[in-house]
Amino acid sequence: MTLSPTARSTPRRLRERARRDRAELYALLDSALVCHLGLILDDAPVVLPTGYGRDGDTLYLHGSSGAASLLAASRATPICVTVTRLDGVVYARSAFHHSLNYASAVIHGTARAVTDYEEVRHGLRVLVEHLAPGSWEHSRQPTHKELAATAVLALSLVEASVKVRTGPPADDAADVAAVRAWAGVLPVTAHWGTPQPCPHLPTNAPVPPHIGRRSPLGA
Amino acid sequence: MTLSPTARSTPRRLRERARRDRAELYALLDSALVCHLGLILDDAPVVLPTGYGRDGDTLYLHGSSGAASLLAASRATPICVTVTRLDGVVYARSAFHHSLNYASAVIHGTARAVTDYEEVRHGLRVLVEHLAPGSWEHSRQPTHKELAATAVLALSLVEASVKVRTGPPADDAADVAAVRAWAGVLPVTAHWGTPQPCPHLPTNAPVPPHIGRRSPLGA
Repeated sequence: MTLSPTARSTPRRLRERARRDRAELYALLDSALVCHLGLILDDAPVVLPTGYGRDGDTLYLHGSSGAASLLAASRATPICVTVTRLDGVVYARSAFHHSLNYASAVIHGTARAVTDYEEVRHGLRVLVEHLAPGSWEHSRQPTHKELAATAVLALSLVEASVKVRTGPPADDAADVAAVRAWAGVLPVTAHWGTPQPCPHLPTNAPVPPHIGRRSPLGA
Repeated sequence: MTLSPTARSTPRRLRERARRDRAELYALLDSALVCHLGLILDDAPVVLPTGYGRDGDTLYLHGSSGAASLLAASRATPICVTVTRLDGVVYARSAFHHSLNYASAVIHGTARAVTDYEEVRHGLRVLVEHLAPGSWEHSRQPTHKELAATAVLALSLVEASVKVRTGPPADDAADVAAVRAWAGVLPVTAHWGTPQPCPHLPTNAPVPPHIGRRSPLGA
């Protein structure tokens, strides 16, 4: 399945940045940690950062079952979920052509409130395993009460677009010839730091491999 | 001036994560590079990543003067701008208490389309200097034609909220006593990589100090 099946998910500008391969959508979603959820509350847009997880062509989002934003998003209203990875700052010979290298996915759809107990549990597992691979089995699994306190939303990935900017600045030829400014890309990369144990852990509790040797970020 | 002067910018849940100091808003905005702009297009929310810059209590956004999203945002409609810094993954003893450490700012308001020529130039300067400090003077400055092709929006920072989560997991006391899972924080940090010169630069063109010794990210 290719991406961008509708008008609003087909970029009109800078088409060379658009990607049409669904694998690029999956790779971006699977390598990032935070999405920005957009919804309409009281006739105004609201954008909130939140975790997510992907299972095939379903994106799971969650929050407290008492959160106003989650309640609004679950009422069959349109939402938008955007995931962005920043890759670098593009220094150009002209101020005008300064830019960012990045990859972003924009997903449009209507959220479905997950009500089936087993799917709430499944959605939470997908979320936890995305945030912290290996943690579902390693940690205490949710009680009925905890699952009841969790609102899980499901969003189809059918209507999605991916944009990517890579490479050097797009300076005008006249500037390349005449302007002596440095031009190029200053890359940005995200890294895991050293695990910080909870103060209540026994001293010298070993860091398990699924945390201490977690896959590199953005990979 | 404190933050959160209106109901929608006053967090209702997890109030302990709310910050009321305007300096925290400025520090977060000044240390991040990308914001997520939310607006309403055809009755649906749209969330787009974009650059920005701050001058006092004004946030400047920009884009091509032909971009549909920028045109929509400039028509005195409500917008929301969110900036998020991810600080780490919180591993808890229970799957339920897994979380993220982060700082986020959510700004509500109505964008003002900047039409005054000198303010367009000023807004672009603020944007470029935020993205690439030192670049405005180092590179060729915009022509009249380039400024005419740039749509600049101004957004007041008056209605803004900041949320921050830090520290170890918030496990239940019973889990701390009984569950043997590792618990703590796996930090995430962003770093500059090695500058990648544009292929059209002369060989061995030196990297100027404002790029090669740029301040650390997130600082």
